Amino acid sequence: MGGDHAPAEIIEGAVEAVRRHGVRLVLVGQAPRIRRELERHGVMGQIPIVHAEEALDMGEGALASWRKPRSSIAIACHLIKQGRASALVSAGSTAGVVATSRLRLKGQQGVMRPAIAVTLPTRPRPTVLLDAGATADIKPEGLVQFAALGTAYAQILLEVERPRVGLLTIGAEPGKGNKLTKRAHELLAGGTHGIEFAGNVEGHDLLRGDVEVIVTDGFTGNVALKTMEGTIRTAFSEIRTAMTSSPPARMGALLQRRRLQELRARLDPDTYGGGVLLGLNGTVVIAHGAARARAITAACDLAHRLAAGRIVERIRDQVAATRTSRFGRWTHGERDGGDRQEGDQPAAATVPAPAPAAREGAGTERTEPRPQVKGAEPPASG
Amino acid sequence: MGGDHAPAEIIEGAVEAVRRHGVRLVLVGQAPRIRRELERHGVMGQIPIVHAEEALDMGEGALASWRKPRSSIAIACHLIKQGRASALVSAGSTAGVVATSRLRLKGQQGVMRPAIAVTLPTRPRPTVLLDAGATADIKPEGLVQFAALGTAYAQILLEVERPRVGLLTIGAEPGKGNKLTKRAHELLAGGTHGIEFAGNVEGHDLLRGDVEVIVTDGFTGNVALKTMEGTIRTAFSEIRTAMTSSPPARMGALLQRRRLQELRARLDPDTYGGGVLLGLNGTVVIAHGAARARAITAACDLAHRLAAGRIVERIRDQVAATRTSRFGRWTHGERDGGDRQEGDQPAAATVPAPAPAAREGAGTERTEPRPQVKGAEPPASG
Repeated sequence: MGGDHAPAEIIEGAVEAVRRHGVRLVLVGQAPRIRRELERHGVMGQIPIVHAEEALDMGEGALASWRKPRSSIAIACHLIKQGRASALVSAGSTAGVVATSRLRLKGQQGVMRPAIAVTLPTRPRPTVLLDAGATADIKPEGLVQFAALGTAYAQILLEVERPRVGLLTIGAEPGKGNKLTKRAHELLAGGTHGIEFAGNVEGHDLLRGDVEVIVTDGFTGNVALKTMEGTIRTAFSEIRTAMTSSPPARMGALLQRRRLQELRARLDPDTYGGGVLLGLNGTVVIAHGAARARAITAACDLAHRLAAGRIVERIRDQVAATRTSRFGRWTHGERDGGDRQEGDQPAAATVPAPAPAAREGAGTERTEPRPQVKGAEPPASG
Repeated sequence: MGGDHAPAEIIEGAVEAVRRHGVRLVLVGQAPRIRRELERHGVMGQIPIVHAEEALDMGEGALASWRKPRSSIAIACHLIKQGRASALVSAGSTAGVVATSRLRLKGQQGVMRPAIAVTLPTRPRPTVLLDAGATADIKPEGLVQFAALGTAYAQILLEVERPRVGLLTIGAEPGKGNKLTKRAHELLAGGTHGIEFAGNVEGHDLLRGDVEVIVTDGFTGNVALKTMEGTIRTAFSEIRTAMTSSPPARMGALLQRRRLQELRARLDPDTYGGGVLLGLNGTVVIAHGAARARAITAACDLAHRLAAGRIVERIRDQVAATRTSRFGRWTHGERDGGDRQEGDQPAAATVPAPAPAAREGAGTERTEPRPQVKGAEPPASG
């Protein structure tokens, strides 16, 4: 129910994901409206619907997750906890989706903080940047975990076995940066934890495509991402002005329109935008608020690929590898007040122990309703 | 002697600043080479030269300031301390210039940390962004001081009496951001300290020109600035490819070449780049390393305007205003280990008390050699 063009474009995109990519999915939201749309596409009865009375508004932030316990996002999280789904896709407000899914899904065992991974439009293949804004304050050890999260994500998304990881900071040499990145550099350069550390990268390297993964805190990542988006918009708007400012220039513009539109589409976050929330007990794909059907189809396909690639288990293993090398001290003992994640505690306290594996374990049929594992369901408010 | 095109382009730009803007300046560097250049321009004997044996290499960082106590930058700082100049211009390596001038000039009284202010190519007038990289780790109170530094700078540069100041963070609402910016927002919103606080701005607002000053820590500011530069370069390079990828497109490109070159020049940091180091006992204008004569002329003119506008005194008053309102506790007591600034101490400990005022006090003749205040000179290594 989230997104500027919900539910029509969302449902159209989902239907296409079922048809084209064979994704098995459940639609969560106001049942009568969803039914109407499915009828329009002639697939009534072929896609399961779970009713949700409420929906988060696009303007709603983190508090909405408390105010609306029956929102479509909250219900979708519930389906994941029940084992009836292993990933969710939403085009709702990022703040609302992140807060609700953190609250409902909880952090996965051993992961200190979740991160939003986005892809930057580099060539020949995209670059994964994380964290794009889930966790604004983080410790150096948390950045090392983000490197593990990003490695797991890039392995599936880019099909690269050992993705190179760069640390976003303000100078190429190890000693450059702020206290956070200097310490994180030391930890990452320490090696032997399954991360292919490629050293520091700077702001002007973001679009170079020299590494597969770029790691930063959620504050810096969000500023950098929005700076990039704003700069691309300004550049194209100024170029449009320059290109139509005289009769010969206007003539030239006509000759180039299609190429520039293609380029704009490739660089415009409205097209490539969106992100994946990593580190929770279930994968959350956050499509851009302005997403149209095509972007939703891509998001459903991505959710399907991540579930099939066992992203949650892969992250668990990857993070465990960072822990066993030289960071034995901190991963479990970590406490810093503030908005501490439940995931810092052994997950067994709230979720029956083998649950994450059970929910993610059965190969490629990740998004199919699977009532048989319902027994693992924790209390709804858990 | 610093810069990719030193000393020829630097001297040509300086000569032009003297001719066109009536700036009174001293050239510091290898005297024989400077003399040759001045002869070439037919102004031998008209511009004073101070010999400096050494020069920082472009690749040299902070350590160079210790290794080369007789570098041209160190000597130029010495002239400021002697009261023979009130500002310096360099196209040398930013790290080297910042480290040397922090070491030689010291922080001005009451200012916790220096900041580099840069201008972003917004319309109708540029926006001041600080800190672009002088201080990577800062406290919320330090960000409030940066707002004061930026206000003083924008008053002179943009000729706006009450520049609006935005705080760079990751959400429009006061509660958004990391710990640093949330606390800084509280302090700035507290008001009554001569700062026109306009609230939060985000990454995509940097090029909108909605405020005159944008305040951030040196880490975030540096990442954002370099992200913007890298994005502009990528966008233009991709546009060039798109515009010349087919015969009709190439024809179109010919018709638009001039407009796009103008736009590129306006947005390209090689053209508008550079920054001003604020918060020291003297103003340091850091031109872009690739600066040509025209950029150097502009930098000399800016240094002249800032000196004439009494930037150091203005900052002193502006910072004092933030202190007397509600921040009485911290400004002088501030200590946090690490690379503590000498400026935190009463300046009288190293510099005779009225010295900063005396050096900056005499109105518009800021860049003129003034041997009469030589008596105020502190020990050279101070």
